[in-house]
Amino acid sequence: MRKIAAKALILQTKLLFSEEMLSKSQLHFLRSLHLKKFRKEHQLFIAEGIKSITEFIRSSYAIETIYYTPPFAVQIEKLSPKINKSLIDETDLQKISALKTPQGILATIKMPISEVPDMTLLQNKFSIVLDNIQDPGNMGTIIRTADWFGIHQIICSNDTVEAYNPKVVQATMGSLAHVAVYYLDLDRWLPEADMPQYAAMLGGRSIYDTPFGTSGLLIMGNEGHGVRAQLLTKDVQHVTIPKFGEAESLNVAQATAIFCSEIKRNTRNF
Amino acid sequence: MRKIAAKALILQTKLLFSEEMLSKSQLHFLRSLHLKKFRKEHQLFIAEGIKSITEFIRSSYAIETIYYTPPFAVQIEKLSPKINKSLIDETDLQKISALKTPQGILATIKMPISEVPDMTLLQNKFSIVLDNIQDPGNMGTIIRTADWFGIHQIICSNDTVEAYNPKVVQATMGSLAHVAVYYLDLDRWLPEADMPQYAAMLGGRSIYDTPFGTSGLLIMGNEGHGVRAQLLTKDVQHVTIPKFGEAESLNVAQATAIFCSEIKRNTRNF
Repeated sequence: MRKIAAKALILQTKLLFSEEMLSKSQLHFLRSLHLKKFRKEHQLFIAEGIKSITEFIRSSYAIETIYYTPPFAVQIEKLSPKINKSLIDETDLQKISALKTPQGILATIKMPISEVPDMTLLQNKFSIVLDNIQDPGNMGTIIRTADWFGIHQIICSNDTVEAYNPKVVQATMGSLAHVAVYYLDLDRWLPEADMPQYAAMLGGRSIYDTPFGTSGLLIMGNEGHGVRAQLLTKDVQHVTIPKFGEAESLNVAQATAIFCSEIKRNTRNF
Repeated sequence: MRKIAAKALILQTKLLFSEEMLSKSQLHFLRSLHLKKFRKEHQLFIAEGIKSITEFIRSSYAIETIYYTPPFAVQIEKLSPKINKSLIDETDLQKISALKTPQGILATIKMPISEVPDMTLLQNKFSIVLDNIQDPGNMGTIIRTADWFGIHQIICSNDTVEAYNPKVVQATMGSLAHVAVYYLDLDRWLPEADMPQYAAMLGGRSIYDTPFGTSGLLIMGNEGHGVRAQLLTKDVQHVTIPKFGEAESLNVAQATAIFCSEIKRNTRNF
């Protein structure tokens, strides 16, 4: 029954709207956005899937174009005429998708411009600082977790994996639309940031005995090496998730989740 | 310099030990262990990488054979003569590896026999119950996190992804050697398990206000659907990680990490 309904819908949309064929140069351009170099050049990135794209539409991000296949036609054609929309076939969508299993809809979105966070934005709240996070899955999960805990700013070292990498965007499950991600020279920025700073690392004070206040920066380090020593200036508090078993380490995204929870556990009492 | 040293080591080991060529049937057999069906048939699974294999050697798991390339020769030949060892070349290793980037060493390991946990093992501590976890990366991360927090038993529904799947083994980073994983019919087992039970789900009591005691079962549900209603018998406490932001959900491995931390935070005071 569902198959028949879907087929009827496709037929109906074919009558109502006509699919465009993407030109070779369009295909080439859209595929180039899978690479950081071209995302930077064009200041555009790709988001896929209706859930994620809907979150970006609702946010302050500017959508450039939505490329959608017939099953999404009714839903997409309802959107504001200000948004460019292009009905394409499944074959073209597969060509431009960065996913193993394309989700029938893809949007190009303008990258936000701000490269350094306005310090007033960081006042009276917690933000996350990432030093050289490499794995796109970890990065995406950290953004999603930050969003769950209402943390809206993530400040990254320039060598942290790019938040607009399609794998990261995918792993955020739409949360990138709610969290601002900045890239800058942490070695210069962090010592100047006049806020309480907490670095997640071995050998520090137990996270359970650390009185996190209502504002500060939580610094999480690289998957293999942790937070770089240069960032650990004298005012940075070293905080540890105690180990009760034998694992050599905790994954950085897991550790971030535990820190976010612990920080919120503290601040909800204020 | 490191390259030269590595080359010298390879030459040296070539003189000391001779590489075996794996036969077609050996290659076929080892590759078959990438699949659940054949792992079950042969009661063997694969672990890769020196760190992970070292953890299994130290544990109560029985190693069947270690297949290693020349860079590992000195280290492996030191091991007990009771362990079968086979020096193979890089090409054969690549053929039997389940990884995109093989790590030069692979072991076949006997699956443990116990299918139902001895209830006395679960007394006076916390264990994790997984209901239909599907993603191998999540499963591996949950096992690694359990190990960090000293949780040594994970009881899974029969439809949860197999812990001996090469992707899971890899994601545990050696922690599978420290954590026992059981598969059984949760619908029958869980109501009979006479211990406090806590199910992670939306709309329950805040995790921050839940007095976890010193023992119990933490029930985590499927990535999309959560814990099945059938498992939520009247004595199961519903516990929630409060949401402070906008994300639709928290990844199950992140949620498990937060629960484990919160449980340990509680029990360390007893």
